[in-house]
Amino acid sequence: MVYSTTLEISTSAAEQAVDITLRVGGLVRESGIANGLVLVFTTHTTTGLFLNEHEGGLEKDVQGVLARLVPPRAGYLHDRVDDNAASHIQSVLLGPSLVLPVTDGRLDLGRWQNIFLAERDGPRRRTVVVKVMGERS
Amino acid sequence: MVYSTTLEISTSAAEQAVDITLRVGGLVRESGIANGLVLVFTTHTTTGLFLNEHEGGLEKDVQGVLARLVPPRAGYLHDRVDDNAASHIQSVLLGPSLVLPVTDGRLDLGRWQNIFLAERDGPRRRTVVVKVMGERS
Amino acid sequence: MVYSTTLEISTSAAEQAVDITLRVGGLVRESGIANGLVLVFTTHTTTGLFLNEHEGGLEKDVQGVLARLVPPRAGYLHDRVDDNAASHIQSVLLGPSLVLPVTDGRLDLGRWQNIFLAERDGPRRRTVVVKVMGERS
Repeated sequence: MVYSTTLEISTSAAEQAVDITLRVGGLVRESGIANGLVLVFTTHTTTGLFLNEHEGGLEKDVQGVLARLVPPRAGYLHDRVDDNAASHIQSVLLGPSLVLPVTDGRLDLGRWQNIFLAERDGPRRRTVVVKVMGERS
Repeated sequence: MVYSTTLEISTSAAEQAVDITLRVGGLVRESGIANGLVLVFTTHTTTGLFLNEHEGGLEKDVQGVLARLVPPRAGYLHDRVDDNAASHIQSVLLGPSLVLPVTDGRLDLGRWQNIFLAERDGPRRRTVVVKVMGERS
Repeated sequence: MVYSTTLEISTSAAEQAVDITLRVGGLVRESGIANGLVLVFTTHTTTGLFLNEHEGGLEKDVQGVLARLVPPRAGYLHDRVDDNAASHIQSVLLGPSLVLPVTDGRLDLGRWQNIFLAERDGPRRRTVVVKVMGERS
Protein backbone atom coordinates (compact mmCIF):
# COMPACT_ATOMS: atom_id res chain seq x y z
CA MET A 1 0.00 0.00 0.00
CA VAL A 2 1.25 3.46 -0.93
CA TYR A 3 -0.03 6.78 0.36
CA SER A 4 1.28 9.69 -1.67
CA THR A 5 1.04 13.42 -1.15
CA THR A 6 3.04 16.65 -1.12
CA LEU A 7 3.85 19.38 1.37
CA GLU A 8 4.09 23.02 0.31
CA ILE A 9 6.59 25.00 2.38
CA SER A 10 7.15 28.76 2.08
CA THR A 11 10.61 29.60 3.34
CA SER A 12 11.32 33.09 4.67
CA ALA A 13 15.08 33.58 4.38
CA ALA A 14 18.01 32.88 2.05
CA GLU A 15 19.24 30.15 4.41
CA GLN A 16 16.88 28.44 6.82
CA ALA A 17 16.17 25.13 8.55
CA VAL A 18 12.40 24.44 8.64
CA ASP A 19 11.18 21.75 11.03
CA ILE A 20 8.57 19.65 9.18
CA THR A 21 8.36 16.77 11.68
CA LEU A 22 4.79 17.42 12.79
CA ARG A 23 3.54 17.73 9.22
CA VAL A 24 5.24 14.49 8.13
CA GLY A 25 4.02 12.73 11.28
CA GLY A 26 0.46 13.88 10.53
CA LEU A 27 0.64 12.45 7.00
CA VAL A 28 1.91 9.13 8.36
CA ARG A 29 -1.12 8.90 10.68
CA GLU A 30 -3.45 9.95 7.84
CA SER A 31 -2.03 7.19 5.62
CA GLY A 32 -3.42 4.41 7.79
CA ILE A 33 -0.19 2.48 7.28
CA ALA A 34 0.90 0.62 10.40
CA ASN A 35 4.30 -0.75 9.46
CA GLY A 36 6.68 0.34 6.74
CA LEU A 37 8.57 3.46 5.75
CA VAL A 38 8.08 7.04 4.69
CA LEU A 39 10.06 8.70 1.90
CA VAL A 40 10.45 12.47 2.30
CA PHE A 41 11.86 14.00 -0.90
CA THR A 42 12.56 17.60 -1.83
CA THR A 43 12.00 18.39 -5.51
CA HIS A 44 14.56 21.22 -5.68
CA THR A 45 18.31 21.44 -6.35
CA THR A 46 19.02 24.18 -3.79
CA THR A 47 17.42 22.54 -0.76
CA GLY A 48 18.30 19.43 1.24
CA LEU A 49 16.81 17.38 4.04
CA PHE A 50 18.42 16.43 7.32
CA LEU A 51 17.46 14.85 10.62
CA ASN A 52 18.69 16.18 13.95
CA GLU A 53 17.82 17.76 17.25
CA HIS A 54 15.49 20.77 17.27
CA GLU A 55 17.65 23.31 19.09
CA GLY A 56 18.01 26.78 17.65
CA GLY A 57 21.76 27.00 18.22
CA LEU A 58 22.40 23.66 16.54
CA GLU A 59 20.30 24.64 13.51
CA LYS A 60 22.53 27.71 13.09
CA ASP A 61 25.66 25.57 13.64
CA VAL A 62 24.67 23.13 10.86
CA GLN A 63 24.14 26.03 8.49
CA GLY A 64 27.42 27.64 9.59
CA VAL A 65 29.34 24.45 8.80
CA LEU A 66 27.69 24.17 5.36
CA ALA A 67 28.70 27.77 4.59
CA ARG A 68 32.26 27.16 5.82
CA LEU A 69 32.72 23.91 3.86
CA VAL A 70 31.16 25.34 0.69
CA PRO A 71 31.48 29.13 0.87
CA PRO A 72 29.35 31.21 -1.55
CA ARG A 73 30.99 32.74 -4.65
CA ALA A 74 34.34 30.98 -4.22
CA GLY A 75 35.12 30.91 -7.94
CA TYR A 76 32.62 28.22 -8.99
CA LEU A 77 31.99 27.70 -12.72
CA HIS A 78 28.23 27.53 -12.17
CA ASP A 79 28.25 31.09 -10.77
CA ARG A 80 28.78 32.30 -14.35
CA VAL A 81 25.38 30.77 -15.26
CA ASP A 82 23.48 31.46 -12.05
CA ASP A 83 24.90 33.02 -8.91
CA ASN A 84 24.12 30.10 -6.56
CA ALA A 85 26.63 27.28 -7.03
CA ALA A 86 27.29 27.01 -3.28
CA SER A 87 23.55 26.50 -2.64
CA HIS A 88 23.54 23.58 -5.09
CA ILE A 89 26.68 21.96 -3.69
CA GLN A 90 25.56 22.31 -0.05
CA SER A 91 22.31 20.58 -1.09
CA VAL A 92 24.30 17.73 -2.65
CA LEU A 93 26.15 17.22 0.66
CA LEU A 94 22.85 16.97 2.58
CA GLY A 95 21.01 14.91 -0.05
CA PRO A 96 17.42 15.24 -1.30
CA SER A 97 15.77 12.31 0.54
CA LEU A 98 15.13 10.93 3.99
CA VAL A 99 13.76 7.41 4.39
CA LEU A 100 12.33 6.91 7.88
CA PRO A 101 10.65 3.98 9.63
CA VAL A 102 6.91 3.76 10.35
CA THR A 103 5.97 1.49 13.26
CA ASP A 104 2.60 0.98 14.97
CA GLY A 105 1.03 3.59 12.73
CA ARG A 106 3.39 6.42 13.57
CA LEU A 107 6.64 8.01 12.46
CA ASP A 108 9.22 5.99 14.40
CA LEU A 109 11.92 8.53 15.27
CA GLY A 110 14.25 8.67 18.24
CA ARG A 111 13.49 11.08 21.05
CA TRP A 112 15.69 13.91 19.76
CA GLN A 113 15.21 13.42 16.03
CA ASN A 114 13.41 16.04 13.97
CA ILE A 115 13.07 16.42 10.20
CA PHE A 116 14.38 19.65 8.66
CA LEU A 117 14.10 21.08 5.19
CA ALA A 118 17.31 23.05 4.64
CA GLU A 119 16.64 26.07 2.45
CA ARG A 120 19.91 27.21 0.81
CA ASP A 121 18.63 29.69 -1.79
CA GLY A 122 15.44 31.26 -0.53
CA PRO A 123 13.08 32.63 0.27
CA ARG A 124 10.92 30.51 -2.04
CA ARG A 125 7.88 28.28 -2.20
CA ARG A 126 9.12 24.66 -1.99
CA THR A 127 7.44 21.31 -2.66
CA VAL A 128 8.31 18.15 -0.71
CA VAL A 129 6.96 14.77 -1.87
CA VAL A 130 5.89 12.38 0.92
CA LYS A 131 5.21 8.67 0.21
CA VAL A 132 4.21 6.28 2.98
CA MET A 133 4.59 2.61 2.01
CA GLY A 134 3.84 -0.55 3.95
CA GLU A 135 1.14 -2.67 5.53
CA ARG A 136 -2.12 -1.63 7.11
CA SER A 137 -2.70 -3.11 10.54
CA MET B 1 5.33 -5.36 -6.36
CA VAL B 2 9.07 -5.15 -6.97
CA TYR B 3 10.85 -4.67 -10.31
CA SER B 4 14.55 -5.35 -10.03
CA THR B 5 17.37 -4.86 -12.49
CA THR B 6 20.88 -3.45 -12.90
CA LEU B 7 22.57 -0.80 -15.02
CA GLU B 8 26.09 -1.28 -16.34
CA ILE B 9 28.02 1.99 -16.69
CA SER B 10 31.48 2.30 -18.21
CA THR B 11 33.15 5.41 -16.89
CA SER B 12 35.85 7.11 -18.95
CA ALA B 13 37.91 9.15 -16.47
CA ALA B 14 39.39 8.99 -12.98
CA GLU B 15 36.74 11.45 -11.74
CA GLN B 16 33.48 11.86 -13.58
CA ALA B 17 29.77 12.62 -13.06
CA VAL B 18 27.63 10.41 -15.33
CA ASP B 19 24.00 11.44 -15.81
CA ILE B 20 21.85 8.28 -15.59
CA THR B 21 18.44 9.99 -15.32
CA LEU B 22 17.11 8.79 -18.67
CA ARG B 23 18.17 5.21 -18.03
CA VAL B 24 16.57 5.13 -14.56
CA GLY B 25 13.45 6.84 -15.91
CA GLY B 26 13.21 4.19 -18.65
CA LEU B 27 13.40 1.39 -16.08
CA VAL B 28 10.66 3.02 -14.02
CA ARG B 29 8.37 3.07 -17.07
CA GLU B 30 9.32 -0.53 -17.93
CA SER B 31 8.42 -1.64 -14.39
CA GLY B 32 4.72 -0.89 -14.84
CA ILE B 33 4.64 0.51 -11.31
CA ALA B 34 2.38 3.54 -11.01
CA ASN B 35 2.98 4.73 -7.47
CA GLY B 36 5.88 4.02 -5.13
CA LEU B 37 9.62 4.56 -5.09
CA VAL B 38 12.80 3.62 -6.89
CA LEU B 39 16.02 2.68 -5.12
CA VAL B 40 19.19 3.46 -7.10
CA PHE B 41 22.21 1.83 -5.46
CA THR B 42 25.84 1.72 -6.51
CA THR B 43 27.62 -1.52 -5.60
CA HIS B 44 31.10 0.05 -5.31
CA THR B 45 33.07 1.75 -2.53
CA THR B 46 34.71 4.39 -4.75
CA THR B 47 31.57 5.77 -6.38
CA GLY B 48 28.61 7.70 -5.00
CA LEU B 49 25.25 8.94 -6.25
CA PHE B 50 23.92 12.46 -6.15
CA LEU B 51 20.99 14.43 -7.50
CA ASN B 52 21.37 17.91 -8.94
CA GLU B 53 21.12 20.13 -11.98
CA HIS B 54 22.66 18.96 -15.24
CA GLU B 55 24.99 21.85 -16.00
CA GLY B 56 28.56 21.13 -16.99
CA GLY B 57 30.08 23.82 -14.79
CA LEU B 58 28.18 22.65 -11.72
CA GLU B 59 29.24 19.04 -12.28
CA LYS B 60 32.87 20.22 -12.21
CA ASP B 61 32.18 22.38 -9.15
CA VAL B 62 30.77 19.42 -7.18
CA GLN B 63 33.84 17.40 -8.05
CA GLY B 64 36.12 20.31 -7.17
CA VAL B 65 34.54 20.64 -3.72
CA LEU B 66 34.90 16.88 -3.08
CA ALA B 67 38.60 17.09 -4.00
CA ARG B 68 39.08 20.16 -1.79
CA LEU B 69 37.30 18.66 1.24
CA VAL B 70 39.00 15.27 0.88
CA PRO B 71 42.24 15.83 -1.06
CA PRO B 72 43.99 12.75 -2.52
CA ARG B 73 47.07 11.34 -0.77
CA ALA B 74 46.84 13.57 2.30
CA GLY B 75 48.47 11.06 4.65
CA TYR B 76 45.59 8.56 4.89
CA LEU B 77 46.27 5.18 6.48
CA HIS B 78 44.37 3.36 3.73
CA ASP B 79 46.83 4.70 1.14
CA ARG B 80 49.38 2.23 2.53
CA VAL B 81 47.03 -0.61 1.46
CA ASP B 82 45.65 0.86 -1.74
CA ASP B 83 46.38 4.31 -3.11
CA ASN B 84 42.76 5.56 -3.16
CA ALA B 85 41.62 6.51 0.36
CA ALA B 86 40.29 9.88 -0.82
CA SER B 87 38.08 8.14 -3.42
CA HIS B 88 36.54 5.99 -0.67
CA ILE B 89 35.96 8.89 1.71
CA GLN B 90 34.47 11.16 -0.97
CA SER B 91 32.08 8.29 -1.77
CA VAL B 92 31.08 8.06 1.90
CA LEU B 93 30.21 11.78 1.89
CA LEU B 94 27.94 11.34 -1.15
CA GLY B 95 26.42 8.02 -0.07
CA PRO B 96 25.70 4.87 -2.13
CA SER B 97 21.89 5.19 -2.53
CA LEU B 98 19.21 7.50 -3.83
CA VAL B 99 15.56 6.78 -3.04
CA LEU B 100 13.27 8.70 -5.38
CA PRO B 101 9.48 8.93 -5.77
CA VAL B 102 7.50 7.26 -8.56
CA THR B 103 4.15 8.91 -9.33
CA ASP B 104 1.70 8.24 -12.19
CA GLY B 105 4.06 5.66 -13.64
CA ARG B 106 7.08 7.91 -13.96
CA LEU B 107 10.15 9.05 -12.07
CA ASP B 108 8.82 12.01 -10.09
CA LEU B 109 11.73 14.48 -10.03
CA GLY B 110 11.71 18.25 -9.89
CA ARG B 111 12.36 20.20 -13.08
CA TRP B 112 16.12 20.64 -12.51
CA GLN B 113 16.88 17.35 -10.81
CA ASN B 114 19.08 14.79 -12.54
CA ILE B 115 20.64 11.58 -11.19
CA PHE B 116 24.42 11.33 -11.34
CA LEU B 117 26.80 8.46 -10.68
CA ALA B 118 29.96 10.05 -9.28
CA GLU B 119 33.01 8.08 -10.37
CA ARG B 120 35.89 8.78 -7.96
CA ASP B 121 38.42 6.09 -8.97
CA GLY B 122 37.93 5.28 -12.63
CA PRO B 123 37.82 4.60 -15.39
CA ARG B 124 36.02 1.33 -14.65
CA ARG B 125 32.96 -0.71 -15.43
CA ARG B 126 30.36 -0.04 -12.69
CA THR B 127 27.13 -1.77 -11.69
CA VAL B 128 24.15 0.10 -10.28
CA VAL B 129 21.18 -1.83 -8.82
CA VAL B 130 17.73 -0.38 -9.55
CA LYS B 131 14.62 -1.56 -7.66
CA VAL B 132 11.20 -0.10 -8.34
CA MET B 133 8.66 -0.86 -5.60
CA GLY B 134 5.00 0.03 -5.30
CA GLU B 135 1.54 -0.41 -6.74
CA ARG B 136 0.48 -1.02 -10.33
CA SER B 137 -2.25 1.31 -11.51
CA MET C 1 5.38 -7.60 3.24
CA VAL C 2 7.33 -5.86 6.01
CA TYR C 3 9.68 -7.46 8.52
CA SER C 4 10.54 -5.07 11.34
CA THR C 5 13.04 -5.32 14.18
CA THR C 6 15.79 -3.48 16.00
CA LEU C 7 19.48 -4.01 16.71
CA GLU C 8 21.01 -3.00 20.04
CA ILE C 9 24.65 -1.95 19.75
CA SER C 10 26.90 -1.07 22.68
CA THR C 11 29.70 1.17 21.50
CA SER C 12 32.98 1.24 23.41
CA ALA C 13 34.63 4.57 22.54
CA ALA C 14 33.81 8.25 22.00
CA GLU C 15 34.32 7.80 18.23
CA GLN C 16 33.99 4.41 16.62
CA ALA C 17 32.92 2.67 13.41
CA VAL C 18 31.02 -0.56 14.19
CA ASP C 19 30.56 -3.06 11.36
CA ILE C 20 26.97 -4.34 11.51
CA THR C 21 26.89 -6.06 8.09
CA LEU C 22 26.58 -9.60 9.41
CA ARG C 23 23.78 -8.67 11.80
CA VAL C 24 21.79 -6.85 9.11
CA GLY C 25 22.44 -9.70 6.66
CA GLY C 26 21.13 -12.19 9.24
CA LEU C 27 17.92 -10.18 9.70
CA VAL C 28 17.39 -10.06 5.93
CA ARG C 29 17.63 -13.88 5.75
CA GLU C 30 15.33 -14.21 8.80
CA SER C 31 12.74 -11.98 7.12
CA GLY C 32 12.00 -14.48 4.37
CA ILE C 33 11.84 -11.63 1.87
CA ALA C 34 13.32 -12.54 -1.48
CA ASN C 35 13.25 -9.29 -3.39
CA GLY C 36 13.00 -5.73 -2.11
CA LEU C 37 14.96 -3.43 0.16
CA VAL C 38 16.16 -3.04 3.70
CA LEU C 39 16.04 0.23 5.61
CA VAL C 40 18.72 0.58 8.30
CA PHE C 41 18.01 3.60 10.52
CA THR C 42 19.80 4.91 13.59
CA THR C 43 17.50 6.50 16.17
CA HIS C 44 20.12 8.91 17.56
CA THR C 45 21.32 12.40 16.67
CA THR C 46 25.02 11.77 17.40
CA THR C 47 25.48 8.66 15.25
CA GLY C 48 25.37 8.12 11.49
CA LEU C 49 25.47 5.21 9.09
CA PHE C 50 27.83 4.70 6.19
CA LEU C 51 28.75 2.00 3.72
CA ASN C 52 32.36 1.28 2.76
CA GLU C 53 35.23 -1.17 2.80
CA HIS C 54 36.07 -2.95 6.06
CA GLU C 55 39.72 -2.00 6.42
CA GLY C 56 40.95 -0.69 9.75
CA GLY C 57 43.01 2.14 8.28
CA LEU C 58 40.13 3.39 6.16
CA GLU C 59 37.76 3.36 9.15
CA LYS C 60 40.21 5.65 10.98
CA ASP C 61 40.60 7.82 7.86
CA VAL C 62 36.82 8.38 7.57
CA GLN C 63 36.71 9.40 11.21
CA GLY C 64 39.76 11.62 10.77
CA VAL C 65 38.11 13.47 7.89
CA LEU C 66 34.90 13.97 9.89
CA ALA C 67 36.93 15.45 12.75
CA ARG C 68 38.87 17.70 10.37
CA LEU C 69 35.78 18.98 8.52
CA VAL C 70 33.80 19.49 11.74
CA PRO C 71 36.29 19.90 14.58
CA PRO C 72 34.99 19.58 18.15
CA ARG C 73 34.44 22.74 20.22
CA ALA C 74 35.07 25.21 17.39
CA GLY C 75 32.78 27.89 18.82
CA TYR C 76 29.42 26.22 18.06
CA LEU C 77 26.28 27.72 19.64
CA HIS C 78 25.01 24.25 20.63
CA ASP C 79 28.10 23.72 22.80
CA ARG C 80 26.58 26.20 25.29
CA VAL C 81 23.64 23.78 25.73
CA ASP C 82 25.47 20.47 25.48
CA ASP C 83 29.16 20.02 24.72
CA ASN C 84 28.73 17.90 21.57
CA ALA C 85 27.76 20.08 18.61
CA ALA C 86 30.45 18.55 16.39
CA SER C 87 29.05 15.06 17.05
CA HIS C 88 25.62 16.22 15.86
CA ILE C 89 26.91 17.96 12.75
CA GLN C 90 29.18 15.05 11.73
CA SER C 91 26.09 12.82 12.03
CA VAL C 92 24.14 15.15 9.75
CA LEU C 93 26.88 14.85 7.11
CA LEU C 94 26.70 11.03 7.21
CA GLY C 95 22.92 10.80 7.50
CA PRO C 96 20.74 8.51 9.67
CA SER C 97 19.60 5.95 7.06
CA LEU C 98 20.89 3.45 4.55
CA VAL C 99 18.51 1.88 2.05
CA LEU C 100 20.02 -1.25 0.54
CA PRO C 101 18.81 -3.79 -2.02
CA VAL C 102 17.63 -7.31 -1.15
CA THR C 103 17.90 -9.83 -4.00
CA ASP C 104 17.39 -13.60 -3.98
CA GLY C 105 16.75 -13.52 -0.24
CA ARG C 106 19.98 -11.85 0.74
CA LEU C 107 21.50 -8.43 1.36
CA ASP C 108 22.71 -7.47 -2.13
CA LEU C 109 25.93 -5.54 -1.51
CA GLY C 110 29.01 -5.22 -3.65
CA ARG C 111 32.08 -7.25 -2.78
CA TRP C 112 33.78 -4.55 -0.70
CA GLN C 113 30.71 -2.93 0.85
CA ASN C 114 30.12 -3.14 4.58
CA ILE C 115 27.60 -1.34 6.79
CA PHE C 116 28.99 0.78 9.62
CA LEU C 117 27.35 2.55 12.52
CA ALA C 118 29.45 5.64 13.17
CA GLU C 119 29.46 6.47 16.87
CA ARG C 120 30.36 10.15 17.34
CA ASP C 121 29.51 10.69 21.02
CA GLY C 122 30.01 7.41 22.86
CA PRO C 123 30.39 5.09 24.46
CA ARG C 124 26.65 4.42 24.66
CA ARG C 125 23.97 1.85 24.03
CA ARG C 126 22.47 2.55 20.59
CA THR C 127 19.33 1.31 18.83
CA VAL C 128 19.14 0.78 15.08
CA VAL C 129 15.77 0.06 13.41
CA VAL C 130 15.83 -2.49 10.57
CA LYS C 131 12.87 -2.88 8.18
CA VAL C 132 12.93 -5.39 5.33
CA MET C 133 10.23 -4.75 2.70
CA GLY C 134 9.38 -6.63 -0.46
CA GLU C 135 8.11 -9.88 -1.92
CA ARG C 136 8.48 -13.40 -0.62
CA SER C 137 9.73 -15.83 -3.22
